[in-house]
Amino acid sequence: MSLDRLIEGIVKTQNPSVVGLDPRLEYVPHYILEKKAAKYGATLKAAAKAILEFNKGIIDEIHDICPAIKPQAAYYEMYGADGVKTLKKTISYAKSKGMFVITDGKRNDIGATMEAYAAAHLGVTDVCGEKCEAFGADALTVNGYLGTDGIAPLIAQCTEFDKGIFVLVKTSNKSSGELQDLILANGKTVYAAMGEMCEKWGELNVGKYGYSGVGAVVGATYPEQLEELRAAMPHTFFLIPGYGAQGGGAEGAAKGFDANGLGAIVNSSRAVMCAYKKEECDEHDYAKAARREVIRMKEDLLGCLPKIAFAEEE
Amino acid sequence: MSLDRLIEGIVKTQNPSVVGLDPRLEYVPHYILEKKAAKYGATLKAAAKAILEFNKGIIDEIHDICPAIKPQAAYYEMYGADGVKTLKKTISYAKSKGMFVITDGKRNDIGATMEAYAAAHLGVTDVCGEKCEAFGADALTVNGYLGTDGIAPLIAQCTEFDKGIFVLVKTSNKSSGELQDLILANGKTVYAAMGEMCEKWGELNVGKYGYSGVGAVVGATYPEQLEELRAAMPHTFFLIPGYGAQGGGAEGAAKGFDANGLGAIVNSSRAVMCAYKKEECDEHDYAKAARREVIRMKEDLLGCLPKIAFAEEE
Repeated sequence: MSLDRLIEGIVKTQNPSVVGLDPRLEYVPHYILEKKAAKYGATLKAAAKAILEFNKGIIDEIHDICPAIKPQAAYYEMYGADGVKTLKKTISYAKSKGMFVITDGKRNDIGATMEAYAAAHLGVTDVCGEKCEAFGADALTVNGYLGTDGIAPLIAQCTEFDKGIFVLVKTSNKSSGELQDLILANGKTVYAAMGEMCEKWGELNVGKYGYSGVGAVVGATYPEQLEELRAAMPHTFFLIPGYGAQGGGAEGAAKGFDANGLGAIVNSSRAVMCAYKKEECDEHDYAKAARREVIRMKEDLLGCLPKIAFAEEE
Repeated sequence: MSLDRLIEGIVKTQNPSVVGLDPRLEYVPHYILEKKAAKYGATLKAAAKAILEFNKGIIDEIHDICPAIKPQAAYYEMYGADGVKTLKKTISYAKSKGMFVITDGKRNDIGATMEAYAAAHLGVTDVCGEKCEAFGADALTVNGYLGTDGIAPLIAQCTEFDKGIFVLVKTSNKSSGELQDLILANGKTVYAAMGEMCEKWGELNVGKYGYSGVGAVVGATYPEQLEELRAAMPHTFFLIPGYGAQGGGAEGAAKGFDANGLGAIVNSSRAVMCAYKKEECDEHDYAKAARREVIRMKEDLLGCLPKIAFAEEE
């Protein structure tokens, strides 16, 4: 269980960013949607097929310069079984291009049910002795509100298949503080308590580069908390949402990184998927516009970070 | 937005219990699984088809004596797109028999993403102007760790389609206290703070019977906390897991109810699905065994509750 493959991809591409594939239908160029609607009608299937073509186009253009994608499960589930088929195919396609795939599902449950989520999203499902891959991502975001009973069941499949998880600690949204910032009797915050749990869950699974297979989600919109948690969670790799559309900047996001320019990956979804709209270029050029935005974001981040490199051997 | 239809079903059947359809493949009788494997091989599709037949058999036998089912999303996702097709068909079938369906997905996210989950599980998805139903349950379990930004986006679709949600407050598992029982600086627990948020989220959506569309999940395994939260959350309907297999009894679960025998519904999954194994009856008789277990559980609960009736008009 580790996030080592993700870290290796970041060093190779010199790019600590992940593209969120949260494909709202209005992000998909008309020519793609119209083609599918002509074939399948105004149906969930047409939407799902359009999204798959859209996603593949972006992956084709960015896989050599960006280490990872993060499909958001909700935007596939809303198209039913056809939508989740597109999720599965998007994951497979990105992996075939060498990308690391983080399914953003924020799943949470306990015991055998959490094992079922692990089988679904990271491992394999046993059917009469055959091992079948349901979705097969490399990592999954999870919510730790239920405690260790909700995390431990993931460990076996994560270990067997070298997968990882990211636990919500301090989320990027405005109201995240309603619960997460509450002060405990010991003077710490709820999010800090969750952070301590992450460090503990990961301590037996620290990989080659000093980070465990249990990562944490911490928003770019809270740079002070990012800095505090980076110091408090030395073995926990951060997934940082909130850059761009939500208002977080590169300088703030940089607080989540270590002295080697590692320790975190920053997500951007809409700005990449809708780059062609912002550029006002031909919609057929959407994937190339996405590539240009990935490069712009990478340079923005690198401008605020130390050179990205594996830690020197001690 | 309300849980009124659920409450009406409870009064009609005089049964405050919900059957959790968490169909691990080993719960499905061999004759069903073998039939599907013969047709489709050892595939995710065979598993999904077997589970659908199993679920329908149980629904046929219990729909007149039990108001609701609670399919657990994880056990469908683990069979990929075929699995979620079975989830959708299970939901439709139970609804066609008059049952209330709670999808146990513990979903959580913010803004447009949470709207996507609402469209997926409770409302409709818009495709080129057509309104398509992806899953169409009556209620969804959610995790409130992200605060109001994670709950407010559900309200519009819940209101339009008269659906409800259940927010995790104090879960039934052993380690639930690791985070949920932490004491805040104001002397309250984290779960009590989450409970207060639930009451607040529901206050504008109180239905005909005094309960809002924002319910809460509180485990039968913590009777003291159930009693405390029942008093503190007068407008919040409880979904109570942990009865039976997890060790919670009827007497403990009863602490979550009000003076009219309402205010809560108790879940049982494995004991119902696997009643035929416990009885050691012919596996072809699995659905009738499930019915017998539903009746046994109902009587167990009713023995600890006041007579179930709508509140008298004041």
